[in-house]
Amino acid sequence: MVVSLFRRRKDHAEIPRLRTRVSRADNDNVNRVALGELTPDLKSYLGRAAYLQLTIFQAASLGVSGAPHLRGMHAMTWVAQRSLEKYAGLVDEIARAGHDPVLTMEPFRHDILEFQRTTRGADWFENLVSVYVTAGLLDDFFVRLAGGLSEERGKRVAALLSPDAGRSHIVDELLAAIGENPRLASRLALWGRRLVGDTLLVARSALAVPEDTAPDEARLEPVFTELIAAHARRMDALGLTA
Amino acid sequence: MVVSLFRRRKDHAEIPRLRTRVSRADNDNVNRVALGELTPDLKSYLGRAAYLQLTIFQAASLGVSGAPHLRGMHAMTWVAQRSLEKYAGLVDEIARAGHDPVLTMEPFRHDILEFQRTTRGADWFENLVSVYVTAGLLDDFFVRLAGGLSEERGKRVAALLSPDAGRSHIVDELLAAIGENPRLASRLALWGRRLVGDTLLVARSALAVPEDTAPDEARLEPVFTELIAAHARRMDALGLTA
Repeated sequence: MVVSLFRRRKDHAEIPRLRTRVSRADNDNVNRVALGELTPDLKSYLGRAAYLQLTIFQAASLGVSGAPHLRGMHAMTWVAQRSLEKYAGLVDEIARAGHDPVLTMEPFRHDILEFQRTTRGADWFENLVSVYVTAGLLDDFFVRLAGGLSEERGKRVAALLSPDAGRSHIVDELLAAIGENPRLASRLALWGRRLVGDTLLVARSALAVPEDTAPDEARLEPVFTELIAAHARRMDALGLTA
Repeated sequence: MVVSLFRRRKDHAEIPRLRTRVSRADNDNVNRVALGELTPDLKSYLGRAAYLQLTIFQAASLGVSGAPHLRGMHAMTWVAQRSLEKYAGLVDEIARAGHDPVLTMEPFRHDILEFQRTTRGADWFENLVSVYVTAGLLDDFFVRLAGGLSEERGKRVAALLSPDAGRSHIVDELLAAIGENPRLASRLALWGRRLVGDTLLVARSALAVPEDTAPDEARLEPVFTELIAAHARRMDALGLTA
C-alpha cells in the first residue's frame, strides 16, 4: 500500500527465523496515535473486539486442522492458544461489566460473518496470511481504540490485546513454504493486499461516528497510516511487499 | 455397553443443567485400577497422549466453527481451551524430557488420523458427542496409564489430564438440543456407542504388550470395565443410554 512496489526483499525468504526482527517491529508502536475520541460505548467495543477475536481463533484453528504436516499443525496451536486467551480475556471484561457475552457479541454477527467469508484463504498458506494480517491489524486497532475506555479498563484491555498473535510461528512456516516454492510469494503478497482492505473496513465500522456525518478523514488518516505501516513491517518480515 | 438397555432416563432431557451431578461423577473415579505395568516408554506415552489431545482440540474447534448459533460457538471455546491447555502441558513434558514434540508425535500419525476419521460426526451434535465421549475415555485412560511413569512425572501428567474437557458446556448444549428435538436422542446414543469401540481401540494400542503375546485380558478387564462405567455415567448425564 504505502510501500513502494520496488521494495521487495527476496533475500528474506532464505532466512529461517526472524524472531528478533519481529519483536523489534512490535516496539515501533510505542508512539501510538490514539483513537480515543472515536471509541464506541463499552459494550459495543467489547462485543465487537471479542467476536473478531473469536474469528481470529477460528482461522487459527483452521490453520491447525488444515496443516499439510504435523509441524505446521503444532505451530498453529500456539497461534490458536494466543487468540483464545485474548478472547477469554475480553469475555471476562464483558462479564465484569455486567453483560452477557453472547448477547453482547450477537449484534455484530452479520458484519463479522461477512468479514470472515471474505478473508478465508483458498489454501493453508493463504489462511496463515489471513490470521497474520487480520490479527495484526485488528489487535493494533483495538489497542488504539482502548484509549477511549475508562483509564484502568483501557489499560487492561490494551495489555490483553498487545501480545502478538503468535506471529513468529506463522513467519517460520510461511518462510519455509516460500523457500520451497518461491512462486508462492507473489500469490501471498496479493492475498495480503486484499486482506488489508477488508480488515480496515471492519475496523472502521467499529468507530463511533455520528450517523449522517462524514468521518473526519483528517483525524483518521494518521491512525490508518500507522496501522498500515505496522502491517507493511509485518509483510516485510515475510519478504513480501505490502 | 455394560448398562441395561432399559435404563434410559428420558427425564434427564428436560433438566437444563446438571453441573453438580457431573462433577460428582468425576469423583467416582477416585479408586482407580492402575494400568502402570502396561505403560509404554515415556516418549511413546507422551507422543501418543499429546497427539490424541491435539485431535480432541481439533474436534472441539470444529465444534466452535460449526456451531449453529453464537451461544454454541462460545460454549465450545471453553472446551477448545481446555484441550489446548492439556496439549500444551504434554508438549512441555516432551520438551522437558529432552525430545522434540513434533518428532515425538510423528510415529502415531497414521493410527491417529484413522481414529480422527472414524470419530468425526455427521453434524454439529454428533461432533459434540465425539468430543465428549473420546475426551472422557482418553483422559481417563491416560491418567491411569500415567501410574507407570516415574512418580513425580506421573503425578504431574495425571494432574494435567484430570480436569474434565469442559464437559458441562457440552452437556448444556446437548440437553438443550435434545430438549428441542427429542428424536436426536436415539441418534446420539447410537453414535456414542460407536465411538466407544474406536476410542478403546486407539487407547489399547498405547499399551506396552510384547509382540506376539496376547494381552493379559484378565488384567485388562477391570480397567476397561471401569472406563466404560465412567463413560456410562457421562452418557447418563445426557439422558442417553451408553
